[in-house]
Amino acid sequence: MNLAIICPGKNPEPWIEALKSYQEDLDIQVYPEITEPEKVEAVLVWQHPKGILSDFPNLKLVSSMGAGVDHILTDPSIPAHLPIVRIVDDRLTWSMTNYVVMGVLNYHRQITRYQKDQKRKVWDMSNPEIPVKVGVMGVGALGYDVLEKLDFMGFEVAGLGFTAKENFKFPYYTKEQLNEFLQEVNVVVCLLPLTKDTENILDMDFFKSCPKGTYLINVARGKHLVEEDLIKAIDEGYISGALLDVYRKEPLPKNHMFWDQEKITITPHIASVTNPKAAVPQILENFSRVKNNHELLNTVNREKGY
Amino acid sequence: MNLAIICPGKNPEPWIEALKSYQEDLDIQVYPEITEPEKVEAVLVWQHPKGILSDFPNLKLVSSMGAGVDHILTDPSIPAHLPIVRIVDDRLTWSMTNYVVMGVLNYHRQITRYQKDQKRKVWDMSNPEIPVKVGVMGVGALGYDVLEKLDFMGFEVAGLGFTAKENFKFPYYTKEQLNEFLQEVNVVVCLLPLTKDTENILDMDFFKSCPKGTYLINVARGKHLVEEDLIKAIDEGYISGALLDVYRKEPLPKNHMFWDQEKITITPHIASVTNPKAAVPQILENFSRVKNNHELLNTVNREKGY
Repeated sequence: MNLAIICPGKNPEPWIEALKSYQEDLDIQVYPEITEPEKVEAVLVWQHPKGILSDFPNLKLVSSMGAGVDHILTDPSIPAHLPIVRIVDDRLTWSMTNYVVMGVLNYHRQITRYQKDQKRKVWDMSNPEIPVKVGVMGVGALGYDVLEKLDFMGFEVAGLGFTAKENFKFPYYTKEQLNEFLQEVNVVVCLLPLTKDTENILDMDFFKSCPKGTYLINVARGKHLVEEDLIKAIDEGYISGALLDVYRKEPLPKNHMFWDQEKITITPHIASVTNPKAAVPQILENFSRVKNNHELLNTVNREKGY
Repeated sequence: MNLAIICPGKNPEPWIEALKSYQEDLDIQVYPEITEPEKVEAVLVWQHPKGILSDFPNLKLVSSMGAGVDHILTDPSIPAHLPIVRIVDDRLTWSMTNYVVMGVLNYHRQITRYQKDQKRKVWDMSNPEIPVKVGVMGVGALGYDVLEKLDFMGFEVAGLGFTAKENFKFPYYTKEQLNEFLQEVNVVVCLLPLTKDTENILDMDFFKSCPKGTYLINVARGKHLVEEDLIKAIDEGYISGALLDVYRKEPLPKNHMFWDQEKITITPHIASVTNPKAAVPQILENFSRVKNNHELLNTVNREKGY
């Protein structure tokens, strides 16, 4: 199999190293130095330049470098017959859940309040816990794991998804029940895939439907959030604060209003980082399956968008 | 049953209210306004003045207002025949575990690093996780719950206790194996009872036995920690930082060196606060049992010190 890696702005070296460690004789070309496009049978991509995949006449497989595929599906030039696969990685799920649970606990136990008290040398034992009930939007592999871990820790939880589910282990709401869902919880975690249905879902209308003081954790995609609406919603008290890991533009521009917001904690898209070493075996497995016409792993449904 | 509450420096009102809500006709005298000491059959105490319990000739039961009893056992004037009981409360365990898991996750995911980066408008995605293996010293109800929750979350854990244990669910070390235990972990949680064996256990010798960069969480008692040794151990790199909830003197004096330590996060003894409403039923149950000569709940073993 001849592979092209296309990830402008991201370092391909750890991927090349991981791929070679499993399959030494793999032919790899790295964008923009692709000299033999007709040989390319598979691409491994992260935010590829739109339209570029039509340069490869013998392409058989498009593989995302991460769990998300919104960066692929927004390229209308990809032929409909071409299979798209993504990474599903236990370790990625583990990191994501740890990050979300950290966010929930820091809000519940008010770590920033105590950090401020420490600076001012204030000893205040009053009201040490904010009662929380956590709502997770998006109940795929990641969202489900967050629900399960928080439940085991003894927190009340609820999930919201875009398709009906039977026998779901936790209280479950569909998008038509978004309002009821929001009334039930006071911490909202966004783990939705980015699709045309979910883009800009975290907007002023959404925030006005939340009980006053709701806390927001966005670990999905920057485009789920209308960023200026969050600032407004915090000013008006609908949202008490937020933990954000993703942004409409990354790296977050130096002049972005989020840097200086006292009630917003920002991290640089590190909630869950795909580990090449862990992801490569499933990528290589899919190369072999596509060559042998076998069913692929972690195929993306273009209609659903994930 | 005639009860005296003795908790100088602590507000007895929530306790009186909770006790009355369960048993309206309970006779309660509150220190220092105890006018009929000969009627007192049970005391509910928190840091009582040493020796005062000999004022009550008809005392049948000493009940701690919390999980700890070091404040009782350090009074040598309490007659040997008098039963001492403590509070064991699921909700207290829940709070404690949440606090510890928060501390572990904040270290693992480096929340203070990202808070600093946010202030300086720095976007740094490198090395987002510090690998951790968590050692819990003290494996009673609280320590065991911490081990179980961290294990469920997928962390490697180990426990250390002062008595041999068979068929313990997690890797277990006794005090004779303290050094081996410390070599195995890089986050140490102290949840030991305070006894003559454990007082000052967290001293320079201890810190020098830790692998360089070990992180400390002390949620047990201030007297477990030799406070100036911690500052020195951080300066010398044995300890990378600490989350502390308890201190030798509380409230922490304004001139205490901990307030200004960048690598120490302090909270005002709020990791786990006994909720009177939740604790009162077991207190009343023990009143009834002592009256009827039945076996008591959560009896303290004076030899062991907990």
